[in-house]
Amino acid sequence: MNLILLSKSDFINDTDVVLTDRRFQHILQVHKSQIDDNLTIGLLDNQIGIGTVKKINDQSITLSTTFSQPPPKPLPITLIIALPRPKMIKRILQTCASMGAKKIYFINSYRVEKSYWQTPLLQPEKINEQLILGLEQAKDTVLPEVILKKRFKPFIEDELPNICKNTLSLVAHPNTKTPCPHFVDEATTLVIGPEGGFISYEVEKINQAGCRSIHIGDRILRVETAVPVLLGKLFD
Amino acid sequence: MNLILLSKSDFINDTDVVLTDRRFQHILQVHKSQIDDNLTIGLLDNQIGIGTVKKINDQSITLSTTFSQPPPKPLPITLIIALPRPKMIKRILQTCASMGAKKIYFINSYRVEKSYWQTPLLQPEKINEQLILGLEQAKDTVLPEVILKKRFKPFIEDELPNICKNTLSLVAHPNTKTPCPHFVDEATTLVIGPEGGFISYEVEKINQAGCRSIHIGDRILRVETAVPVLLGKLFD
Repeated sequence: MNLILLSKSDFINDTDVVLTDRRFQHILQVHKSQIDDNLTIGLLDNQIGIGTVKKINDQSITLSTTFSQPPPKPLPITLIIALPRPKMIKRILQTCASMGAKKIYFINSYRVEKSYWQTPLLQPEKINEQLILGLEQAKDTVLPEVILKKRFKPFIEDELPNICKNTLSLVAHPNTKTPCPHFVDEATTLVIGPEGGFISYEVEKINQAGCRSIHIGDRILRVETAVPVLLGKLFD
Repeated sequence: MNLILLSKSDFINDTDVVLTDRRFQHILQVHKSQIDDNLTIGLLDNQIGIGTVKKINDQSITLSTTFSQPPPKPLPITLIIALPRPKMIKRILQTCASMGAKKIYFINSYRVEKSYWQTPLLQPEKINEQLILGLEQAKDTVLPEVILKKRFKPFIEDELPNICKNTLSLVAHPNTKTPCPHFVDEATTLVIGPEGGFISYEVEKINQAGCRSIHIGDRILRVETAVPVLLGKLFD
């Protein structure tokens, strides 16, 4: 937790917040903060600043807040990821949030097992928990939007072409000749397949929607590794 | 397990292997292989090929092997990473192995807690377990070398300058002006700090040993995310 993320409901007046939850525990146990210590704070979807410890007791901590700077720049990317197996979802959400992706679609694909869509980890509050962990790690405040698309074909045919419009549109796919471009730094749409990859029919549909196939080498990487590799290449 | 990694001791004659361990379980439960099915195999530190299922029973599977191609190219990198907290070690080792790093030093630093060095995860057989998971993921066969350096100063002063010789030598450090270069594709030495970063004294010593400070943006990433981001930028 490199930044303590606050929401408007934490405020007891114009400047002070009282925390009683895991943020309180973290400040006590990890930061070991004492009266007058300063902590990096951020207001959800808003600015970053400093929180000064005013009171600590057994149940809560009171911080006096000032906000002075914008959160770090988002990445100009829309990520479209075949729904990963549940045990990977948490980490992928954290990684996307910490790297600054602000729009993430989870989509269906032939190799996405139907049961994956049933996981409680896809409940909005569970998704937000992981996104917030990523924001706290990266000192960001702007919550990404996560959108679930359970039907492949309508999404790819009816929505993807509009998402791709005026963006560099790519699909990461092994056995392709073109390597992922480096340092494009422009609005980008990036589609990433499931473990085992998209099937040929799916790649064709995604190509038809406007996404060019690119690869990241011979090595098959886990999605949670492929995401930072791809974002690292695409942006400075 | 995109590749079944074999060692010489698995062979019962010139061409056939009998597997009884987690590889056997994986072939049965995940690949659901049957007689005459082909599997991608690799021989440790050697070539990649095809294993054809000859026999399956309750306790073992017999594959007939042929080897025909070299493993994927390694990355020309020496990674020097401040020892991460134990719960991150496994994933970092897997990531490094799957991305093709072949030489990884874990070093001490002011912000590495002494207790981290006591974890059983640093026993050679435990390290190898994680490296093998990474190789199996990436269809590689060449086991990386992991070297533990418990004393910062002697390593940085006496060994690092030699490691850096004739390589692009970098240390990832926030609050630096130079961004990580893209697509250098040359022999590289890369030093990565602990959570919370190296202290100034340490950065100075690492700079003096020949490593230039570079950053990967405002966002503080976990080491397990920073490694794929950095390797993604540096290599094609």
